[in-house]
Amino acid sequence: MACEGAPEIRIGRKPVMNYVLAILTTLMEQNTNQVVVKARGRNINKAIDAVEIVRKRFARNVEIKEIKIDSQELEVVTPTEGGEQGQPRRRRVSSIDICLEKKEEAAA
Amino acid sequence: MACEGAPEIRIGRKPVMNYVLAILTTLMEQNTNQVVVKARGRNINKAIDAVEIVRKRFARNVEIKEIKIDSQELEVVTPTEGGEQGQPRRRRVSSIDICLEKKEEAAA
Repeated sequence: MACEGAPEIRIGRKPVMNYVLAILTTLMEQNTNQVVVKARGRNINKAIDAVEIVRKRFARNVEIKEIKIDSQELEVVTPTEGGEQGQPRRRRVSSIDICLEKKEEAAA
Repeated sequence: MACEGAPEIRIGRKPVMNYVLAILTTLMEQNTNQVVVKARGRNINKAIDAVEIVRKRFARNVEIKEIKIDSQELEVVTPTEGGEQGQPRRRRVSSIDICLEKKEEAAA
């Protein structure tokens, strides 16, 4: 992965603009020009939204260095209504890692 | 994009295995070793699931050549309950294009 050791931002249930802000502040304030945006399952499209809002609206000098996708099979046990354990089910959960890099602004 | 002119598979509302089958038959039967899997919004994680099921369970010689993400702002007009048109709202819709390539099996 291109963003080895870069700070991570994990996309969860908060509104997308929270993550846009997190990406921007990480890239602006910390001693790094890279950040990895990670998401799983239903949050994947929020990750893509956040990255594209950063790039199109706020920081046009941020480039996508690499995108990695993966999926894992998990065994999920859902309790039934009676309270007993149900049969374990296998569920596939997909994930995405997006490596972003801030380029220096071109000198005028 | 790496998959210039390759057949497209657009991920929609059907079960994920339908798209797995579509990807496999396209790669196996047609005169191409590439295919582009496209999805928007909530279908993006299904696209990743489909690609990973193909790669991990069915065809280990299929590689991800390139992944592109994008987002578009649309104006959406939702009719109100009274039947009049509501105010147009701007909505961002993210999308993903995954270019897959089938490698030849290594000779034994």
